[in-house]
Amino acid sequence: MILARELQERYIRVRSRTEAICRGLEVEDYVVQPVVDVSPPKWHIGHSTWFFETFLLEPFLPGYRPFHPDFGFLFNSYYETIGKRVLRAERGNMTRPTVKEVYRYRAAVDEAMGRLLETMELSSELIATLELGLQHEQQHQELLVTDIKYILGHNPLFPAVQIQREHDLAETAESGWLETAEGVYEIGHSGEGFCFDNELGRHKMYLASFRIGKALISNAEYLEFIRAGGYEHFAFWLAEGWDWVRSAQVKAPLYWHFIEGEWFNYTFEGLQVLDPNAPVCHISFFEADAFARWKGCRLPTEAEWEVAAPFLTWGHRWEWTNSAYLPYPGFQAAPGAVGEYNGKFMSNQMVLRGASETTPMGHSRITYRNFFQPEKRWQFTGLRLAQNAF
Amino acid sequence: MILARELQERYIRVRSRTEAICRGLEVEDYVVQPVVDVSPPKWHIGHSTWFFETFLLEPFLPGYRPFHPDFGFLFNSYYETIGKRVLRAERGNMTRPTVKEVYRYRAAVDEAMGRLLETMELSSELIATLELGLQHEQQHQELLVTDIKYILGHNPLFPAVQIQREHDLAETAESGWLETAEGVYEIGHSGEGFCFDNELGRHKMYLASFRIGKALISNAEYLEFIRAGGYEHFAFWLAEGWDWVRSAQVKAPLYWHFIEGEWFNYTFEGLQVLDPNAPVCHISFFEADAFARWKGCRLPTEAEWEVAAPFLTWGHRWEWTNSAYLPYPGFQAAPGAVGEYNGKFMSNQMVLRGASETTPMGHSRITYRNFFQPEKRWQFTGLRLAQNAF
Amino acid sequence: MILARELQERYIRVRSRTEAICRGLEVEDYVVQPVVDVSPPKWHIGHSTWFFETFLLEPFLPGYRPFHPDFGFLFNSYYETIGKRVLRAERGNMTRPTVKEVYRYRAAVDEAMGRLLETMELSSELIATLELGLQHEQQHQELLVTDIKYILGHNPLFPAVQIQREHDLAETAESGWLETAEGVYEIGHSGEGFCFDNELGRHKMYLASFRIGKALISNAEYLEFIRAGGYEHFAFWLAEGWDWVRSAQVKAPLYWHFIEGEWFNYTFEGLQVLDPNAPVCHISFFEADAFARWKGCRLPTEAEWEVAAPFLTWGHRWEWTNSAYLPYPGFQAAPGAVGEYNGKFMSNQMVLRGASETTPMGHSRITYRNFFQPEKRWQFTGLRLAQNAF
Amino acid sequence: MILARELQERYIRVRSRTEAICRGLEVEDYVVQPVVDVSPPKWHIGHSTWFFETFLLEPFLPGYRPFHPDFGFLFNSYYETIGKRVLRAERGNMTRPTVKEVYRYRAAVDEAMGRLLETMELSSELIATLELGLQHEQQHQELLVTDIKYILGHNPLFPAVQIQREHDLAETAESGWLETAEGVYEIGHSGEGFCFDNELGRHKMYLASFRIGKALISNAEYLEFIRAGGYEHFAFWLAEGWDWVRSAQVKAPLYWHFIEGEWFNYTFEGLQVLDPNAPVCHISFFEADAFARWKGCRLPTEAEWEVAAPFLTWGHRWEWTNSAYLPYPGFQAAPGAVGEYNGKFMSNQMVLRGASETTPMGHSRITYRNFFQPEKRWQFTGLRLAQNAF
Repeated sequence: MILARELQERYIRVRSRTEAICRGLEVEDYVVQPVVDVSPPKWHIGHSTWFFETFLLEPFLPGYRPFHPDFGFLFNSYYETIGKRVLRAERGNMTRPTVKEVYRYRAAVDEAMGRLLETMELSSELIATLELGLQHEQQHQELLVTDIKYILGHNPLFPAVQIQREHDLAETAESGWLETAEGVYEIGHSGEGFCFDNELGRHKMYLASFRIGKALISNAEYLEFIRAGGYEHFAFWLAEGWDWVRSAQVKAPLYWHFIEGEWFNYTFEGLQVLDPNAPVCHISFFEADAFARWKGCRLPTEAEWEVAAPFLTWGHRWEWTNSAYLPYPGFQAAPGAVGEYNGKFMSNQMVLRGASETTPMGHSRITYRNFFQPEKRWQFTGLRLAQNAF
Repeated sequence: MILARELQERYIRVRSRTEAICRGLEVEDYVVQPVVDVSPPKWHIGHSTWFFETFLLEPFLPGYRPFHPDFGFLFNSYYETIGKRVLRAERGNMTRPTVKEVYRYRAAVDEAMGRLLETMELSSELIATLELGLQHEQQHQELLVTDIKYILGHNPLFPAVQIQREHDLAETAESGWLETAEGVYEIGHSGEGFCFDNELGRHKMYLASFRIGKALISNAEYLEFIRAGGYEHFAFWLAEGWDWVRSAQVKAPLYWHFIEGEWFNYTFEGLQVLDPNAPVCHISFFEADAFARWKGCRLPTEAEWEVAAPFLTWGHRWEWTNSAYLPYPGFQAAPGAVGEYNGKFMSNQMVLRGASETTPMGHSRITYRNFFQPEKRWQFTGLRLAQNAF
Repeated sequence: MILARELQERYIRVRSRTEAICRGLEVEDYVVQPVVDVSPPKWHIGHSTWFFETFLLEPFLPGYRPFHPDFGFLFNSYYETIGKRVLRAERGNMTRPTVKEVYRYRAAVDEAMGRLLETMELSSELIATLELGLQHEQQHQELLVTDIKYILGHNPLFPAVQIQREHDLAETAESGWLETAEGVYEIGHSGEGFCFDNELGRHKMYLASFRIGKALISNAEYLEFIRAGGYEHFAFWLAEGWDWVRSAQVKAPLYWHFIEGEWFNYTFEGLQVLDPNAPVCHISFFEADAFARWKGCRLPTEAEWEVAAPFLTWGHRWEWTNSAYLPYPGFQAAPGAVGEYNGKFMSNQMVLRGASETTPMGHSRITYRNFFQPEKRWQFTGLRLAQNAF
Repeated sequence: MILARELQERYIRVRSRTEAICRGLEVEDYVVQPVVDVSPPKWHIGHSTWFFETFLLEPFLPGYRPFHPDFGFLFNSYYETIGKRVLRAERGNMTRPTVKEVYRYRAAVDEAMGRLLETMELSSELIATLELGLQHEQQHQELLVTDIKYILGHNPLFPAVQIQREHDLAETAESGWLETAEGVYEIGHSGEGFCFDNELGRHKMYLASFRIGKALISNAEYLEFIRAGGYEHFAFWLAEGWDWVRSAQVKAPLYWHFIEGEWFNYTFEGLQVLDPNAPVCHISFFEADAFARWKGCRLPTEAEWEVAAPFLTWGHRWEWTNSAYLPYPGFQAAPGAVGEYNGKFMSNQMVLRGASETTPMGHSRITYRNFFQPEKRWQFTGLRLAQNAF
């Protein structure tokens, strides 16, 4: 019974944070999808709700009837097991259901979830699925902030908006290298707490000795790379990265604007003079990798990062690693539809480690594996250098 | 003075109809651009306002200062003379200014226009530009209805919406052919009333004798074409049309859906059983042309249409002709930015004649030349047959 | 019998000219297709042969068996009636049959044609189809020269090659305008000689009085347009043309190169200093139209051209007109597969009149209607100005 | 001196094998590039020659003058350091230089190389570069066979051609699993022989215990996967792989054709009935991965493969591993232009291990790392299964 109350409170706490993030939005901001990667905020609101309706209310709450027969179709993201879905690229054309209706859907599901969590003997399967739903909601909270930033940051008016965040973006005082000796280390999640299937299978890895930077690279350091012609010389870039730089005419991180001789940066406060001390943000793997090469260094592997993390300050940027997103030894996708969650994306993506200023409290851990294609940069991504020490 | 009052009243009447059209929309419906051709309703509201601000208030109202420095950039459509503009394909990503702000812009311009029309000696140049602005607004009213239909008609919920229209869609009682004798006829606009530059240059044309259908082709007749395999046999189609049918997998007019053995049609009342007696609508030039060929007939030329029109019932569908959109002998583009209005589109488009159920009262005339690319069909387009009579 | 011998001689004369054109080619030059429009010379050799095999030998020569069962598939161009065909874009990947084998195919068909023309009572249907085949061959001769020029002219080595042509490219001595009075004129083909179906239906047209240039526009005149910023100012261009100029980064006619301060032109003699007196060549309709607008003139319509042609020197360039390619009143596509020849291309193309320096002797007449999309310019296209005279 | 003679002989032996491979080709086969990945054989002939001219003759042979000033431009592949190059996609449009001229170029470079290797004191730098050139030539020999197969295998005539190969394609007799115990192993190249920079940095890796298949998967086994609906069920596929299957409509390995109820396979002998016992070939990483998942297994990692290889029969197929192509710890790109050889491709590619029936004798070793994008399958690729043994 106490458990049920705790779960209920946690449910409410997590869910209400999603709404808090959106408090500063106009109705219009909820609707659009300027590029395929960026989902309309309305869709995030509906999709995270659909997850609870589909994976908890329908199987576990006797007599529950879906709020609307078409919402499964509208708010399914990629679960092929569950049936047809609106093409991802079409999400931004769906003016109906309206924002108000989606919030009504959300409220109805929350109300039914309240009943589910109150009156039931909670099976361990239910509890596990609930936890997955809440973690899923938190992932979408991060994407929500990211997508809102993209939508507003590409508007010629550069509107400011109050977005609830949980972290202060402290500047890092530390500098220099952390040295780590060679040896066999253990990587991956073990123990009681929640983790995703892709973190499981704690396993040994031999690491050669290496150094890893104590601080994230700052805007000022990145600006040196730009001024040194970093974007103009092929030798710093992977071949694919160089193609990307030229075809997309990339000259600086996303949201940077060079206006009358000065660098500006779009933030939720609007267009601001670039802060030289803040960690660089919104760079692609290709840019992170090129910067590291220019510095005569390299990016850390995800194993190196995980071994070093307990001794580092981290959590302000998702940090690019030089590890491709691949299964751990012994990886098993979870059974059923939720097994489509992680494993099927294990090609052509690079691993990010850490967390960012927009990651919900309690949603990060040192074994967490985030992943994106190497040219993506609308996430709050940054970098930290590494070096061989042998 | 009386003139000024009349102009003022006409200005208010035309402008308020735009707002009336939108009365049934939700805020979300104003924002999106599902395909490049379909502009967000919000953009139409702002763009038609921008026209009056740019071409009337700025040059003619002393001391007028633009409502917002960026709105020229945001709401300019294609006038290269006037400066930079938001790429047409990006209109649907602009969540700001909000719908409320755009209506505020509209109200401010209307208020200033009120002052302009009240206090000034109205030059003939001003009056002509005002008239052009009102005609321009009426054109956008038609596009507005068309674009709203596209946005809602591609929503999986097929929402009904109350859209103000001025015409009843009467069924045509007439049938059979109108015969027209060979001879030299005069084509094009002359006289006092308003017309666009592309209608001017009334000129002689020799026409051979021809027959033209008294009635528009109905849904029932078009359904016969479908049932006869019209979309499956190349011989009825222009080569480009056949490529279009296959690559876009076209099987019926836009908004038609074949559901469990029955044909449905999306209308502003939602998804409805197809009305066999209504004139067929939302077909491309390629479809109109293929239908005509299947019937052993052809489409009329625009000259034939204009000569026959006084003896026909027309005005429910824009009617495809077999005339390419080209300049009349003696065509002169209007000077200045408004000269970009029509002439520069004179390639790869076909002429439509008539008007549609959504054309504003007083905005149609028999010399009016509408034009679209031959594969476009989101307009309220239909067809009438013609035949040689020699 | 005399007739048969004449036909035979004419057959040999026309067919051998195709081979003469190719005499200077290397085997490699026969194979490639650098862009979809440009067919490999080997394909032209085979396709024109296939026409005689399919439309003459198979129906008319008893016991004839196709040279190779797959050649129908390989060398059919666009005749949907006749069955499957290699996708046009794939022609340049077919290294087999080899050039030698294609010539063997050609020789075998020519031998069988010799037998057909010798021993048969020649029906009027056969004679008409033969004539069509020869005209078809001559059309491909022109395309062959054009495509060879494209293949070699886009090679970084700019190879010279001896291409058999029938015309000297005389410089035009005439200048000034030809005046034509208003009136009803007759347009289109009549009489005994060969013509394509799209020329038939001689019909009356009313023309207002106009002037037409006696000379084609020269390279020197076109250079003035370039130097006056013609490619940099939108006002001279149709909207589609301006999009084309910017997206394809067009700055001069095809084959022009600006090298160290001087204009060069690729010709079959290799890269040559631009000849200022030669008529401008390899321009698109958009460029012709923009040049005319810059001059304060316009392009002639095809009717104007046809009426004026008897009083003009023409035949060195295909001349762009401002007429869209549309059916004449009373147009009837020929029955059967050959009816796919012309009519189905009647959308989004502009009419060219005249002939070019590469047009075979006897293959041009004043009623001939050539047609291309408005951005195409690999043909030997040029322009002549017109003006209203009212 | 003996060294020089040995080098000379080795040079001649390697170079002449390239020519031997092409002996069965027609001139036409040398010219085309049906897809971007497939280079024209002529280009391989010229490019491998250009390597020796650029990196050996120009720096090391006093007084050497390039054979042709434009060949550097024409035959440079991707070395940005060396200057401009023909866009990769345009290689197939270059009909000149002719095949004969390219062979003349080849002969001239070989003759100069003969002089270089005869008369000089051979520095270790020269010897190392020569070795790299020969290895490079051997890599292109494999690509040459692969590209020839693509060119002929996509021709509707399915021509047979005699291609010199060095290996018999023996069927594997072995079956079952090889068991490998957990432990720290060493991976990567060490010692005297040639290797590429990406194999260097022999390093320790901890491997958990695993099993690896003794035999490659055969056509018969792969056919079971097809018959079980392998290409129709998303659950076997990575998300990107599933998108690829649907958009490219993949239904079987490359070169497989299902004709009247039977499976055929294009080989250099022409279209042949599928050999059930031969190892499956021409599959993408996505297909290999899906097959393994369907079998309840996985692909080996490249480290597992390298550890197991001494106990396996390998060398008939390049084998897909589940390792992304990434730098080894301590990877250093070679200095200068040759440093562009491998390192810059370390993103979005998967590692292949082993060799194929077309790999030149002496060009394979267990540390060799080949790599391709996961959807590529025109190489002679196959698969071997692996399993965890813990």
